[in-house]
Amino acid sequence: MNTIHQAFCIFRNLGGEFQLFNEQSVPNWLEQRAFLTPDRVAIKTECEIVTFKELYEKSKERAYQLKRIGINKDDHIAVLMKNSIEMVTTIHGLMLIGAVTVLLNTKLSETELSWQIKDVQAVKMIYDESFQERIENINEIEKFTVHMLRLYRNGTAEELQHCLMLNDVATIMYTSGTTGYPKGVMQTYGNHFSSAINSAINLTIQADDKWLVVVPLFHISGLSILMRSVIYGMGIIIHERFDARLTNKAIMDEKVTIVSVVTTMLQQMLEQLGKDNYPKEFRCMLLGGGPAPKPVLEKCRDKDIPVFQTYGMTETSSQIATLSAEYSLSKLGSAGKPLFQCEIKIMDNDCRCAPYEEGEIVVKGPNVTNGYWKRDDATSASIKQSWFYTGDIGFLDEDGFLFVLDRRSDLIISGGENIYPAEIEAVLLSHPAVKDVGVSGVEDEKWGEVPCGFVIPSESVTESELIEYCKKNLASYKTPKKIFFVDHLPRNAANKLMRRNLRLSLNGDNNK
Amino acid sequence: MNTIHQAFCIFRNLGGEFQLFNEQSVPNWLEQRAFLTPDRVAIKTECEIVTFKELYEKSKERAYQLKRIGINKDDHIAVLMKNSIEMVTTIHGLMLIGAVTVLLNTKLSETELSWQIKDVQAVKMIYDESFQERIENINEIEKFTVHMLRLYRNGTAEELQHCLMLNDVATIMYTSGTTGYPKGVMQTYGNHFSSAINSAINLTIQADDKWLVVVPLFHISGLSILMRSVIYGMGIIIHERFDARLTNKAIMDEKVTIVSVVTTMLQQMLEQLGKDNYPKEFRCMLLGGGPAPKPVLEKCRDKDIPVFQTYGMTETSSQIATLSAEYSLSKLGSAGKPLFQCEIKIMDNDCRCAPYEEGEIVVKGPNVTNGYWKRDDATSASIKQSWFYTGDIGFLDEDGFLFVLDRRSDLIISGGENIYPAEIEAVLLSHPAVKDVGVSGVEDEKWGEVPCGFVIPSESVTESELIEYCKKNLASYKTPKKIFFVDHLPRNAANKLMRRNLRLSLNGDNNK
Repeated sequence: MNTIHQAFCIFRNLGGEFQLFNEQSVPNWLEQRAFLTPDRVAIKTECEIVTFKELYEKSKERAYQLKRIGINKDDHIAVLMKNSIEMVTTIHGLMLIGAVTVLLNTKLSETELSWQIKDVQAVKMIYDESFQERIENINEIEKFTVHMLRLYRNGTAEELQHCLMLNDVATIMYTSGTTGYPKGVMQTYGNHFSSAINSAINLTIQADDKWLVVVPLFHISGLSILMRSVIYGMGIIIHERFDARLTNKAIMDEKVTIVSVVTTMLQQMLEQLGKDNYPKEFRCMLLGGGPAPKPVLEKCRDKDIPVFQTYGMTETSSQIATLSAEYSLSKLGSAGKPLFQCEIKIMDNDCRCAPYEEGEIVVKGPNVTNGYWKRDDATSASIKQSWFYTGDIGFLDEDGFLFVLDRRSDLIISGGENIYPAEIEAVLLSHPAVKDVGVSGVEDEKWGEVPCGFVIPSESVTESELIEYCKKNLASYKTPKKIFFVDHLPRNAANKLMRRNLRLSLNGDNNK
Repeated sequence: MNTIHQAFCIFRNLGGEFQLFNEQSVPNWLEQRAFLTPDRVAIKTECEIVTFKELYEKSKERAYQLKRIGINKDDHIAVLMKNSIEMVTTIHGLMLIGAVTVLLNTKLSETELSWQIKDVQAVKMIYDESFQERIENINEIEKFTVHMLRLYRNGTAEELQHCLMLNDVATIMYTSGTTGYPKGVMQTYGNHFSSAINSAINLTIQADDKWLVVVPLFHISGLSILMRSVIYGMGIIIHERFDARLTNKAIMDEKVTIVSVVTTMLQQMLEQLGKDNYPKEFRCMLLGGGPAPKPVLEKCRDKDIPVFQTYGMTETSSQIATLSAEYSLSKLGSAGKPLFQCEIKIMDNDCRCAPYEEGEIVVKGPNVTNGYWKRDDATSASIKQSWFYTGDIGFLDEDGFLFVLDRRSDLIISGGENIYPAEIEAVLLSHPAVKDVGVSGVEDEKWGEVPCGFVIPSESVTESELIEYCKKNLASYKTPKKIFFVDHLPRNAANKLMRRNLRLSLNGDNNK
């Protein structure tokens, strides 16, 4: 390790211009963690417990396999996997050889996956066998299951990247936007590190912390817990998927201290919990994914459940603001104040809004992305003088607490997944019987919101025909749950579709 | 604030070459802390308690006073003060206007103070009235007491630096070296921030933490606690000076959880403690300032006192390695492993030593200084490819735990103060009756070590004459406690003085 490390640092240090980069070279996180606290439990799943030393050994083995199939530093590698230790070792393995991990949402359709793989210029793909059918026709890339990787063996420590550069891109995650085309958010090691330590400054780090992962690792909500785990030396418990009963059981029986959830999950947990309550060690229910309904927060308050409402997104590498439990009552409904190294302002037409004035939420911090992969236009449109324009609407109160009113104007949040209407509209418009279309979220008891289509037909077509068509081209969570046939769509003077009015039209409330 | 902040960031962002710097701009720590947790207690002294909001208000007022006396961004300002809230607001006030704080050791002689002030090119000095006499003849600089500053008033938020750049120098502290001339160690905001968060990753941050400051704020051991306080939002208790009884009393009565000490302090505390013991909340006795004698560590072990032995120096902005309490028994005597973003290697003649091989301790990390003020030669001699050569001698065991054998070959550590023999030798040599001289540390029950001189006289002179001469030119802790007159000095083939042999000659042991 040492020779390689030195050589690498000397290489980086050759020119004076590299000085700044060089300053930011630090030991690989997992390697350092395994060195510092080898015997601490790193991860627990239903069937396995691994210490940091074991996790490092497994990840090193994975790194050698990835090397043997021809992956090199800086290669973009698509990962389509379910939460598991195999997924964790794949991510760490890719970091150990300096490749960039592209985390794919496992709910995406073949078309969507194929599009992202092409867009990100991934050269290889690692996937779970269970997705075999879904990716069968994606042929522009070499594909490997974990089973296939195991055929490859051997490697030496010299092949690994023992130090990492905080300015290097570690991961790419796709997020859609109002324009409809998903964009690859580049997250650097520095972004992840800053996210982890600013979260720690706010939530504190306790020696007995155990963070429960019931959100997907391909989302920033899950991946950020993995990063905190190696950075803090904190044990995490990983579930393959969210199940309210198993989540509650883990909190009850496993001395979980923190869990990250979105509203729909919290609701199911509360229902399942019934009259029971969580043990005293459980210190933080980190609630993200959009503004939570007050009744849910009030129910938690009545049960003394320590809810920390948070606001963040893929572009901020997890939280940018979090409400501490000490304010959960007096500032109910707020997403709190920015993390220590972060800033938030509300902007309206290039002017900073006064307290309580609504406007776009604009954020800044070392956890904020440098931009979108190969989308200079989108990057310069949303990042101006280091400030990231979220597109979300909100206000600050007189004490500086953030209240989020609406996510990215038209964004639909369904069970914690972000859905952009424009993406669904594009699919519906491609159907020959659709003349014009608008998509909006409609309230749903279980998912918070679900997408619905408002279609002006050009010829005869049924609701189920259109839904079936969407299913073929979109992840099922994006498929409209209902199609309404209409005569006209609400557009403003500039002919811009007023999607909020679509939803309101359902309630017969057109005042707004 | 906002306009200024924006303007500042836009200015920094003008050229693409500033991008990296710009990424590292973050809100001023105290301002952000006062915004995030205004009502938390920041500092408690014998006579005062201030919250973060109050501390910010006081520091802002101090900043305006400093502005009114003509201090500008990037000015070097000497601070000669005792631990107090006034000293804290002066340091934060200087940070709020972007000036560089030069922290002077209050034990220095007039000659030494004058030399450092000139060397660092300080333009103003803020001092405690009690040092009036000591600095009376230092006329090359404008001098202000806090009392004088209070005559100046008024200012507006626009004059303050609301964001800080992590690459900017925040503080300069002088440290001597083997060459005898003190050197100004430049500590950036990034150095202090990294130091604080890497300490937090290792020691954890608890919501009820309260760190007791009984070490001087002009040393990195004290200043680093002040930095952690604003970064974590943690309360600290400041004593003007160390007193074993008052330190124990604070731990007993004030719910102190952490205290930083050096061996001589710990010994006095143990003696004063008698058969008593510390309360359960007290979780960390952070023990720095050189290797501790085993009997002291064993006594702590027997009393269940959680000692965390640490290794660090001015150049590493506090800790670079710390032994966790979990290893305090199995690795007794070790200074532990590096902090999370830090690295340690042992070098001998450009070769990396194997476990247990002794050599120079060489360290790396984002908390390590970029160099010495205007000493490019000293900087390039001690920092090579981002590795800092400490001059200290030690080894790593097979698990990577650091054992420090000897601080900077000839360094004498007396009651936590670093003393460089070369500095004392230079003073003695300037005496007309001294032909040649060597200075070495000799064991002392109270101070650990005290400096002693070995003099070859050129004419008749007494021990007390020479000690008196030193007192006039050196801080009293540096003044030799004894002078031995000798016929010759131990020098090696290259005529290099073998100072270790001076000490050994006293014991009649010349084997080494």
